[in-house]
Amino acid sequence: MRAVVLTGYGGPEVMDVADVAAPVPGPDELLVDVHHAGVNRADLLQRMGRYPNPERSAQEIPGLEYAGTVAALGERVSGWREGDPVMGIVTGGCYAEQVVTHERLALPVPPGLDLADAAAVPEVFITAWDALVVLGGLSSGRWALVHAGASGVGTAAIQIAGAIGARVAVTCSAGKVDACRALGADLAVERSPADWVAALRDGLAALAGPDDVDVVLDVVGGEEADRNLAVVRPKGCVVQVGLLAGPAATVNVGQLLAKRVRWVGTVLRGRPIEERIATCRRFAEEVLPLFTAGRLHPVIDRRFPLAAAAEAHRVMEANANIGKLLLDVT
Amino acid sequence: MRAVVLTGYGGPEVMDVADVAAPVPGPDELLVDVHHAGVNRADLLQRMGRYPNPERSAQEIPGLEYAGTVAALGERVSGWREGDPVMGIVTGGCYAEQVVTHERLALPVPPGLDLADAAAVPEVFITAWDALVVLGGLSSGRWALVHAGASGVGTAAIQIAGAIGARVAVTCSAGKVDACRALGADLAVERSPADWVAALRDGLAALAGPDDVDVVLDVVGGEEADRNLAVVRPKGCVVQVGLLAGPAATVNVGQLLAKRVRWVGTVLRGRPIEERIATCRRFAEEVLPLFTAGRLHPVIDRRFPLAAAAEAHRVMEANANIGKLLLDVT
Repeated sequence: MRAVVLTGYGGPEVMDVADVAAPVPGPDELLVDVHHAGVNRADLLQRMGRYPNPERSAQEIPGLEYAGTVAALGERVSGWREGDPVMGIVTGGCYAEQVVTHERLALPVPPGLDLADAAAVPEVFITAWDALVVLGGLSSGRWALVHAGASGVGTAAIQIAGAIGARVAVTCSAGKVDACRALGADLAVERSPADWVAALRDGLAALAGPDDVDVVLDVVGGEEADRNLAVVRPKGCVVQVGLLAGPAATVNVGQLLAKRVRWVGTVLRGRPIEERIATCRRFAEEVLPLFTAGRLHPVIDRRFPLAAAAEAHRVMEANANIGKLLLDVT
Repeated sequence: MRAVVLTGYGGPEVMDVADVAAPVPGPDELLVDVHHAGVNRADLLQRMGRYPNPERSAQEIPGLEYAGTVAALGERVSGWREGDPVMGIVTGGCYAEQVVTHERLALPVPPGLDLADAAAVPEVFITAWDALVVLGGLSSGRWALVHAGASGVGTAAIQIAGAIGARVAVTCSAGKVDACRALGADLAVERSPADWVAALRDGLAALAGPDDVDVVLDVVGGEEADRNLAVVRPKGCVVQVGLLAGPAATVNVGQLLAKRVRWVGTVLRGRPIEERIATCRRFAEEVLPLFTAGRLHPVIDRRFPLAAAAEAHRVMEANANIGKLLLDVT
């Protein structure tokens, strides 16, 4: 099969299309014909050698999510038939014509979504929902703050907050404020170089909101870490999903104490399979129906042929996208 | 009544014994004759003007916990009788002959404890149990790390961990290792100037324990914050109960992400009364029986007359105590 393999670690140019052996499903696994693969920040880190796939293989193929059809079934598989539309998260290997996955980790494609839409769902909607709702405890009437509102995770988070009756403020780059508002953000402020803390509080006041927010979803870290602790309300939660600004942070821990705040780190891929399955099963029950009901919509910025994966990485590195970048595989 | 009042903010000398008006119980409150009051770090901060009582009164009287007898009942009180032995936490005012408290915030003195023992229970055992078990999720078979093992909270935490089937490592000053072991610490290492991280891991290995710990109870902060994140296991929790080393901390947030760690701040006094009551009711059900069963023992270092409150503060400031310092009021 054709796949994008890493010929080394470095810039986008280390990715090459090669012919490699197709994966073989174990007894509880599906073999999937990948139609579309999502591009994620983690792929860029993996390409640079900074986020290795915990499940090593001879050839390193990036790609954490896919949508396609079931091509073959392991002998114990009971929940799927050949040809079923399927999507999901795996620990790697989706920049390829075929991938294998545990049958209970795979998600049905919600009625009404085509396979390109479907490929834009798993990573960002699972990450945003898990961070805001499961870890952060966001619920109706409360306010979330989402950094990088126009990113894949950001566009998912804006919609999820709205769908559960919460309200959402986002920070984003200067040119993306309108896009965030169009997706449903109640408030969108530029993250930099403006003082977004003051802008956020002014905006909340103008909307008769609370002084601060209940849950922060942050993919940035660095200097934002201390500001996040500043703008989270007593008993609120900061969920750290990424560290685009690097791992080091200097913070006033007194804010953590005085406000009894939780600061929680999370990753999806590093979880043991039973936890990833449990998360996906709950996501299927609680979030997938919202796509069919028209409450959630995948946001696709651009699609690239598999052979142009390097170009997709460059677009993401330039922070030029609003929503998901996809690779069309077949 | 006689009480210790703050004549200003500063060193121990700002505390003076004065005659002040006795407090008057509201309809749901008890008036308590205080026999003994506990001395806490928070009292020192309050004395220095850095931790004001959220419930202001004309004269500022320190003291967050008491044991004594019920002197009078508000008109709606249903759970107590005059003369009942009683103990508990309040937001201030215990360095005095009388104090008032909501009847549901007050705790019965467990059978077998005298009133001096009782005064050594509320703050440190509630704080340690709430931090380790309620917030940290400590359970049987797991390992806790407790900084300042010989402090009031530390001596309580060591015993609580043992009583619920968990194991506990502590850090402490050089001269207090044996005292911590005698209280039941499975492992006690000097916190400074030695590299306690290496000593902790060596000790865990020698006891065939895990590489790292599940829950950290920290009263120090500062440079320990990053070390706490280093020694906590995946999905573990760091509970920040104090910041003796100051509020600023520089940490590697990557550890929070990669290990999916929770870092939670907590205070007792700053909680709204309904939360303090709920915590005390659950504590009464889950922890007080362990005193009667002989599994938990108050640890009293020294007792002082009320008029010697300044001396008690100096002993605590010098970090010279092992366990609680009490004031004998009547």
